Amino acid sequence: MSLPEFADVAAAAKRLDGIALRTPLLENARVNAMLGGRLFIKAECLQRTGSFKLRGAYNFLSLMSEAQRRSGAVGWSSGNHAQGLAEAGRLLGVKTTIVMPADAPALKVANTRASGAEIVLYDRVKDSREAIGREIAARTGATIVPPYDHAWILTGQGTAGLEIVDQARALGATLDAVAAPCSGGGLATGIALAVKGLSPSTSVHAGEPAGFDDMMRSLAAGEKQTNARLSGSICDALLAPTPGDITFPLARDLLGPGLVVSDEEVLDAMELAFREFKLVVEPGGAVALAAALTGKMPVKGRTVAVVCSGGNVDHETFARALARRAP
Amino acid sequence: MSLPEFADVAAAAKRLDGIALRTPLLENARVNAMLGGRLFIKAECLQRTGSFKLRGAYNFLSLMSEAQRRSGAVGWSSGNHAQGLAEAGRLLGVKTTIVMPADAPALKVANTRASGAEIVLYDRVKDSREAIGREIAARTGATIVPPYDHAWILTGQGTAGLEIVDQARALGATLDAVAAPCSGGGLATGIALAVKGLSPSTSVHAGEPAGFDDMMRSLAAGEKQTNARLSGSICDALLAPTPGDITFPLARDLLGPGLVVSDEEVLDAMELAFREFKLVVEPGGAVALAAALTGKMPVKGRTVAVVCSGGNVDHETFARALARRAP
Repeated sequence: MSLPEFADVAAAAKRLDGIALRTPLLENARVNAMLGGRLFIKAECLQRTGSFKLRGAYNFLSLMSEAQRRSGAVGWSSGNHAQGLAEAGRLLGVKTTIVMPADAPALKVANTRASGAEIVLYDRVKDSREAIGREIAARTGATIVPPYDHAWILTGQGTAGLEIVDQARALGATLDAVAAPCSGGGLATGIALAVKGLSPSTSVHAGEPAGFDDMMRSLAAGEKQTNARLSGSICDALLAPTPGDITFPLARDLLGPGLVVSDEEVLDAMELAFREFKLVVEPGGAVALAAALTGKMPVKGRTVAVVCSGGNVDHETFARALARRAP
Repeated sequence: MSLPEFADVAAAAKRLDGIALRTPLLENARVNAMLGGRLFIKAECLQRTGSFKLRGAYNFLSLMSEAQRRSGAVGWSSGNHAQGLAEAGRLLGVKTTIVMPADAPALKVANTRASGAEIVLYDRVKDSREAIGREIAARTGATIVPPYDHAWILTGQGTAGLEIVDQARALGATLDAVAAPCSGGGLATGIALAVKGLSPSTSVHAGEPAGFDDMMRSLAAGEKQTNARLSGSICDALLAPTPGDITFPLARDLLGPGLVVSDEEVLDAMELAFREFKLVVEPGGAVALAAALTGKMPVKGRTVAVVCSGGNVDHETFARALARRAP
């Protein structure tokens, strides 16, 4: 199996031109002074559908053949991949079917349906979403669009990394390090392909929530490790059990040591993003920022960019983040 | 007195190039479908210092002579102008003194001080901030930087309008209307100069909170009107008592009918900005968006841009907006 390369990310960027928003790279003088360095936030929470997932899904559907597109696409996701895939389908005129848990937040189900996707609900306890998705694919001829472990997906996500390097250069900055949230590793490895291609000396790191640090442990061990649990972090977007078969070898080649943060550190990062950057960031989207704010990814004396990868957070959870600091 | 012109806005844009963030122009497929038209948000809440005010203040300080700059600048503001002026001073090496009410939110005072400004506190009941500011100017030779009623200020704010038209065109959109929040009218008239210069058929409107609709009533009456009250709206940034001597003639020449929204409509707009656009918008920053969402500024069948002008909102007020809709 040949792994995707920098050129594949560059090609994806052409497909996404005019489709994906070129999200801003933000910095804040007060936060820089506090950290003693220069911190950039790549605000992918402002991306269409509220997360970076549109990039990979749109790139994937664009690369399907005409015949495949006519037969539709199917995916399973409780959150951001569902919305990204559904919207990519709407934009490209590809019928999408999304398998979602029956207890998914009503807003996420409604948002996915609003893009024109057909929703198939399953029972988290009794059913296998993969089995349901594969049955739909077999019956209808729809193409399965995996959430991360596919070259077309991760190179699409990587286009955010091209923008980060380009935007930092325009601001006169050379990046010492870039960090991105990591679940299965599609975003982190895609960004690593992009960043390493443009700026080989920049280190790239994957951020994970405590207890779901399979990538960090896999990188340390040199082989894939699995999380003990499947749920139990506030970071609902980052619960994949183990790195992918494509993302792990890429990660081993391209990523520096992993970064792990607690739920409390994530809530604090969300509060800072609210207060200083005026951004709504979801828990899973804030892990790389949390790593920078806590010093786990050092910023002092350096120039660092973190991806805030999504903003699809419910009102109650956001209120919890606000409550971390009195006005 | 000659009024500022389009060319002055274009010149300000050159001064602000690389200084002011080119904030994104965002849209959302679901919101567009809900409104039956195309709605853009100019996200000036993401601007450095959390509001558009940096644009005008930086333009003003840039245009001061070397001798004036050495004597410093003084302004009075409880909020966004304070932070914008202080940060412009820091960037240009001009000492700034800001007269702020003693009961201003601690965070705003701290933020202003963090930019290196000297803070002079006054008592809202007993003192006149103008008198204090003028005394400082007379004693130190500092130049007074007014919050809105000056050509250098409003043409700086207008640079956001150049970006709106340019960004909309890049998205293939021709704007039927643009709306911006209005207190003294600096932002709205600056944007009108810019937008009318590039796209004469686009109408431009000022949005105000109910009870503080002096601009709307002044436009309707053809002469300056004054608000009955000086406080009592959630929109703390939009409480100027009457249009300016420069902004009003510009407004009369360039603006369409005014738009007025209630505090409840503002909170609903803040909630929608959170949920759909992942933006933190302060109450005063959300009035134009509120006008679009309520149909007071019609979007159906049209293409409309609204400026969300700031994001400097305290935690408690933002939590009130979140509570407008259960998750």
